[in-house]
Amino acid sequence: NQEITWSLLYEEWASYSVFYKYQPIGLIRKYFGEKIGLYFAWLGVYTQMLIPAAIVGVIVFLYGCATVDDNIPSMEICDPRNNITMCPLCDRACSYWKLMTACGTARASHLFDNPATVFFSIFMALWAVLFMEHWKRRQMRLNYIWDLTGFGEEEEGEKVKLTCTDRLPAYLTTVVTMCFMIAVTFAIVFGVILYRISIKAALHISNYPAARSNIRATVKTTAAIINLIIIIILDEIYAAIARWLTTLEVPKTDKSFEERLIFKTFILKFVNAFTPIVYLAFFRGRLVGRPGNYLYVVGSYRMEECAHAGCLMELCIQLCITMLGKQLIQNNLFEIGIPKLKKLLRRRKSEMDTKQEEELNKTLQRHEKDHFLGPFVGLSPEYMEMIIQFGMVTLFVASFPLAPLFALLNNIIEIRLDAKKFVMELRRPIAAKAKDIGIWYNLLRGLSKVAVIVNAFVISFTSDFIPRLVYQYMYSPDGTMHGFINHTLSYFNVSDFQPGTEPLQPMHLGYHVEICRYKDYREPPWSSTPYELSKEFWAILAARLAFVIVFQNVVMLMSDFVDWLIPDIPKDISLQIHKEKILMVELFMKEEQGKRLAARDNHNQDNFTSPSSADQSPPQPRSRPVSHANCY
Amino acid sequence: NQEITWSLLYEEWASYSVFYKYQPIGLIRKYFGEKIGLYFAWLGVYTQMLIPAAIVGVIVFLYGCATVDDNIPSMEICDPRNNITMCPLCDRACSYWKLMTACGTARASHLFDNPATVFFSIFMALWAVLFMEHWKRRQMRLNYIWDLTGFGEEEEGEKVKLTCTDRLPAYLTTVVTMCFMIAVTFAIVFGVILYRISIKAALHISNYPAARSNIRATVKTTAAIINLIIIIILDEIYAAIARWLTTLEVPKTDKSFEERLIFKTFILKFVNAFTPIVYLAFFRGRLVGRPGNYLYVVGSYRMEECAHAGCLMELCIQLCITMLGKQLIQNNLFEIGIPKLKKLLRRRKSEMDTKQEEELNKTLQRHEKDHFLGPFVGLSPEYMEMIIQFGMVTLFVASFPLAPLFALLNNIIEIRLDAKKFVMELRRPIAAKAKDIGIWYNLLRGLSKVAVIVNAFVISFTSDFIPRLVYQYMYSPDGTMHGFINHTLSYFNVSDFQPGTEPLQPMHLGYHVEICRYKDYREPPWSSTPYELSKEFWAILAARLAFVIVFQNVVMLMSDFVDWLIPDIPKDISLQIHKEKILMVELFMKEEQGKRLAARDNHNQDNFTSPSSADQSPPQPRSRPVSHANCY
Repeated sequence: NQEITWSLLYEEWASYSVFYKYQPIGLIRKYFGEKIGLYFAWLGVYTQMLIPAAIVGVIVFLYGCATVDDNIPSMEICDPRNNITMCPLCDRACSYWKLMTACGTARASHLFDNPATVFFSIFMALWAVLFMEHWKRRQMRLNYIWDLTGFGEEEEGEKVKLTCTDRLPAYLTTVVTMCFMIAVTFAIVFGVILYRISIKAALHISNYPAARSNIRATVKTTAAIINLIIIIILDEIYAAIARWLTTLEVPKTDKSFEERLIFKTFILKFVNAFTPIVYLAFFRGRLVGRPGNYLYVVGSYRMEECAHAGCLMELCIQLCITMLGKQLIQNNLFEIGIPKLKKLLRRRKSEMDTKQEEELNKTLQRHEKDHFLGPFVGLSPEYMEMIIQFGMVTLFVASFPLAPLFALLNNIIEIRLDAKKFVMELRRPIAAKAKDIGIWYNLLRGLSKVAVIVNAFVISFTSDFIPRLVYQYMYSPDGTMHGFINHTLSYFNVSDFQPGTEPLQPMHLGYHVEICRYKDYREPPWSSTPYELSKEFWAILAARLAFVIVFQNVVMLMSDFVDWLIPDIPKDISLQIHKEKILMVELFMKEEQGKRLAARDNHNQDNFTSPSSADQSPPQPRSRPVSHANCY
Repeated sequence: NQEITWSLLYEEWASYSVFYKYQPIGLIRKYFGEKIGLYFAWLGVYTQMLIPAAIVGVIVFLYGCATVDDNIPSMEICDPRNNITMCPLCDRACSYWKLMTACGTARASHLFDNPATVFFSIFMALWAVLFMEHWKRRQMRLNYIWDLTGFGEEEEGEKVKLTCTDRLPAYLTTVVTMCFMIAVTFAIVFGVILYRISIKAALHISNYPAARSNIRATVKTTAAIINLIIIIILDEIYAAIARWLTTLEVPKTDKSFEERLIFKTFILKFVNAFTPIVYLAFFRGRLVGRPGNYLYVVGSYRMEECAHAGCLMELCIQLCITMLGKQLIQNNLFEIGIPKLKKLLRRRKSEMDTKQEEELNKTLQRHEKDHFLGPFVGLSPEYMEMIIQFGMVTLFVASFPLAPLFALLNNIIEIRLDAKKFVMELRRPIAAKAKDIGIWYNLLRGLSKVAVIVNAFVISFTSDFIPRLVYQYMYSPDGTMHGFINHTLSYFNVSDFQPGTEPLQPMHLGYHVEICRYKDYREPPWSSTPYELSKEFWAILAARLAFVIVFQNVVMLMSDFVDWLIPDIPKDISLQIHKEKILMVELFMKEEQGKRLAARDNHNQDNFTSPSSADQSPPQPRSRPVSHANCY
């Protein structure tokens, strides 16, 4: 029977060729238990829900592609008649440059920075709520089918009885260590930034023109790869630290241990994965100061600027690399490569030649073959990977509408990969019962709440959506976007450069530059308060903040409405549960009545029936044994 | 037995002299049923929770009183050396005035507009969450004591089977009528505003100095009273309309009918009660235009301005009148007066003289006496009154820290008043079972969510909290509040008045005025863009909006944290429930086993026990009959 289930799973589930089919959740539960069954059910629901998100994301991206030629701001940047001279991007080595050279980036950034992105953010916020609701209903249905509605998590006895005072040192250690690890993450991210800055400066100073032309590409790529490697290495270290900290805390029950461990690991991995992205989205290019008064770090390095309209572009590239790179490396290396390697090593040890082994394979039972497989280490790594991905999909969807598509493609592979792993690479785990996905649900819920505010900030601060709107309705002379680029650029008088920071080759462009432009809203040199933040800056800042408030509250209201609209328990299931409850009560009453009758019979032989159940035919409770592991 | 319960309730509950005691909830439930028991339990929890809120509110108010003399802005207003000439408050009839004359208002408004208010808003937001949690736990405990944990609301059969198409006209009617009624409320509020404006203008034009000196007081008082009367009258009309609309919708069950009715009534009453307050808090004094370019409505009436720093003050007065007035009138007139009157009329009808009646009173049973009492009309009016009060307490607490105190005082009376009503004025209602307070809980939850954002806006837009902070940290030359008043006032050149709007008595103050001041952040007449919104305006607007975002998200985070920290079910109750569930399961298994044994005995006499319960001693379930009405 088990052998048949295994081969059914092998054929119908653990194969890439059936990627378009639903998973045989019933079989999975039968063979691996409820906990693993729920994981695959959840992964299935998530992947299924990613399909519409991916489709809408692709449409939004295609809308960006289609409208790139009608986009007035990028047309203005690319127009050679707008002869705008920009201030140098670094001290001394860099010179003035033409805005026209940023034409490519400007056009590319329109793909990810257009009004459709706002719509897509709202869509994805509601999508997240729908996903949670859909999962709640599916879980309820599985609970019913698997007969877990009456199953409560067993409260285990406490292993150790500790008072608050006993626990305090452990909690303090946890808090301090967590803060320290988060600080380490920040420091590493800052280190990578410094690396980028210094390499850039070094390359700028070198006189090889070949090196210079490749400056941007080289720096970006190496920095992104370093980031990625650091994230992957730290992930492993953090997992170990989280485990150590949780052991220190001596949680009361195994369940509490697991939840605390997951929570800590989540916090650390989340910070690790998202710090570089948050830096790119909200800080890069904002802390640069202004020409003549730049911000310097570690001596004489200027903070990095984005290419014109390029911060969003770099955010996209980073998201793309993190999503693809992390998933590819983790999937291939950690999930396929390492188990295979371990298996190989284990076989090497037992020193059998291939033929003998094949022979054995035929005669051995499944549980005997299991001996050669890796042990099952729990579902946490699988969930964690998916939750971080869910974070990528919901948190920064405003800047990268293709994220759901990437996630979908990854997950279609992921399901079958995990299936293969469970069926073939790992020893069959001991079946564990579970009613829900536990703390993971709360983490998902928390993420989808945070996503609303993060998206609001990405739209209003990272993209140029709000400045464009403000320009169009407040400053534009003719109500169109013409003149927007000129409006976003402030003036700088080159005689105001701090001594020693002016470009070495001022005549680089072939003419003498008196006024250069930079992207900021500041007063011009000829105003009474030169280079101070201008009225436009404050007006646009107010508009950005107002947008955040409106966006957050509207999306929260819509989410609450959707949440309220969809009942948590499917109608048919709730009816069934209600019916069964009534039967249970009737059974109980019959029992009571029987006892009473028996007691009365002992006293006198009067044949009296209690009025409450006298006029009822005896109930026929559907026979549902309360705990059975393998029925389907 | 019933008679004893009644007299116990009469002595221990329905009396003002026991106001400091807990209510005998068990007795109430025994005599009136679970639904009414839950109402009084809820009212008790709410009143109890109001005590700390009232205490903190009074402390905040006292803090305002204590610091009023150290408040630099009001000191500057009251300082006769700051000889500031303000622009006239109305066209032609009004003249220039000294800022010093606003000294009293400025000092008074400090009572409600000081940093402690911000703290109090946060406190009250968390208070609301604590209240909800506390109630959930209390409800759970009552459910357990009253043995309702297994009780599910009975799904009634549908009375009428209607398709969506059948229901569409009714839904449309509802939506249209609701919108219309809300529009009517807005129109009436606007009408009251127009009344105030026109009366003020008429009084200004009249030449009686006595009339003039009382202008403000007269207008304010009459307008507030008109508002109050309109609210009370509309409340009654709206209740009728909501009932009519719900009947049109033909809800599927009685429960659904009640919920829909409550929801509609709530929306209408809420809009009715809060529109004047919202106008005062967010619109009054903001839509006035500026000197030389005022905003006129209905021909030639200028929109009303607040007295200097007085908008918050007027909001306080309005809240005070609404809370005190509404509660006093509704309590006294509707809840005591009218039932008494009805009772009197009913007695008149039966035409008995007092002596005969007294005689009868002694001989009659309670249920016979009931004949002379008014019928029970449901709990909705009681709940509704409390919910609107909860709204007042949480929504505008930032502007009126004494609201919880007023609510507390009202509720202490309210409990005993309702008790008297139920015990003596009304016929004993048919006991109804209920597990929770139903839709009222959702409405409370919704209100406490809305309260966070409303308070954020009151603090940042209605009070001067943010402008003061911005001045202190951005503009103040010495980092103190000195010069704040001067900074908030813009300059106006009197030669820029539109023809026909300049004051008739320009020499009113005894000297020739060239420049007058008005409260706004606009460019001075000598700038290149005179009277345009200044950079300070936008900077302060950005700061206000940023505060809203920070406040809302911090408070929401803290609320979620408190919500997560406090378990919904008290620990002892959840343990008890768990134990009982296990007993229930054991009972079921014993039953199953008995059947199996019986079946097997019929086939062969083999004495086999199932392994699952073989090693267990037979369970002794605590005998709890599933439905019993009067056990305590």
